[in-house]
Amino acid sequence: MRQDVEFWFDFGSPYAYFAAQVVEARLARFDRTVIWRPFLLGAAFQATGMKPLAATPMRGAYARRDWDRIARLHGIPFRQPGNAPLASQAAARCFYWLVQAHPNLAIPFAKAAFRAYHADGADIAPREAVLRIAAPFLAGDAQLAAWLGSDHAREVLREVSAEALDRGIFGSPFFIADGEPFWGFDRIAMLEDWLGRGAWPTATEATP
Amino acid sequence: MRQDVEFWFDFGSPYAYFAAQVVEARLARFDRTVIWRPFLLGAAFQATGMKPLAATPMRGAYARRDWDRIARLHGIPFRQPGNAPLASQAAARCFYWLVQAHPNLAIPFAKAAFRAYHADGADIAPREAVLRIAAPFLAGDAQLAAWLGSDHAREVLREVSAEALDRGIFGSPFFIADGEPFWGFDRIAMLEDWLGRGAWPTATEATP
Repeated sequence: MRQDVEFWFDFGSPYAYFAAQVVEARLARFDRTVIWRPFLLGAAFQATGMKPLAATPMRGAYARRDWDRIARLHGIPFRQPGNAPLASQAAARCFYWLVQAHPNLAIPFAKAAFRAYHADGADIAPREAVLRIAAPFLAGDAQLAAWLGSDHAREVLREVSAEALDRGIFGSPFFIADGEPFWGFDRIAMLEDWLGRGAWPTATEATP
Repeated sequence: MRQDVEFWFDFGSPYAYFAAQVVEARLARFDRTVIWRPFLLGAAFQATGMKPLAATPMRGAYARRDWDRIARLHGIPFRQPGNAPLASQAAARCFYWLVQAHPNLAIPFAKAAFRAYHADGADIAPREAVLRIAAPFLAGDAQLAAWLGSDHAREVLREVSAEALDRGIFGSPFFIADGEPFWGFDRIAMLEDWLGRGAWPTATEATP
């Protein structure tokens, strides 16, 4: 059985969007299954006392500049989000419905939702917007609309987000491989290094 | 005249310590002067509403694990700081005194101070500790002790830290090259890319 790499993200995070564009290609040479796990970053912000980047003085301005240059460097279409922070519940709930109903379509939907928000400038907070994005992936299945507003959908996403908190996942994107955590788009190189080595050097003693 | 790369840091930051170990070797192939600029990160934390990593739930635990693995991966001697966050005033004031009095010794002192705190487990907050670390770099000059407690020393460091705030420098380490900002030890690769290219691709339009 292939081992996993978990890819945790909030749909509203530009760094997660960039990661979603490159993660499969970057990890393709390792014999791993990448498990996509959208969650709500808001709960982690409450626990860490952090705020969305766009709402943080200085860091917000740096992040906006950084997103633009990362997009240019990697040739990824990108527009600054107009309505940040995104309420990403509907998109995340839709993803988990697809995981159950049409598992092969969950990741294609996630990519479409990322692109709608981060490249096309769409507001994907409303359920109606998510239903439009999901339409090509539903194979004629009409149950999604009712499910998005259900207690079950809410509970599924709440549990996933609680699991993230329990496991110390406080940012987006956040990768876990063999129990080793990697936070941020710019740590994919370190994740590749980990997957390539299988283990890291043992501790270096501080020389006296 | 060679262009600069500014290297801003707080002596208490493990990520800055790691950067200090590698920055000269990593940037040696570019025709640049690296200007070391210690400042007090505390003022930036007040402005951004952030807290020292060690005091932030979840992020603190991640950072401690991350410091250990970075140290192992790069073969850098490292001990978890016992008295974080460090009050780094004395070390930073000493640095700026050396810049004036014995400019060629300022960076060697900074490396010794970083190493004392991050590798040897010394508390470098007290002036006496900084004076001991600085002793080999003073060339017999006895004026430092008086200067460390002077209004002038306080004012110099206050101005440097105010400049950092004005210029949007909110983290440590923080590099600036040709006006382009790079925050974090793990962005040295991006800084190298910038220095190698001289410029980056122009904006990619989001495809409709």
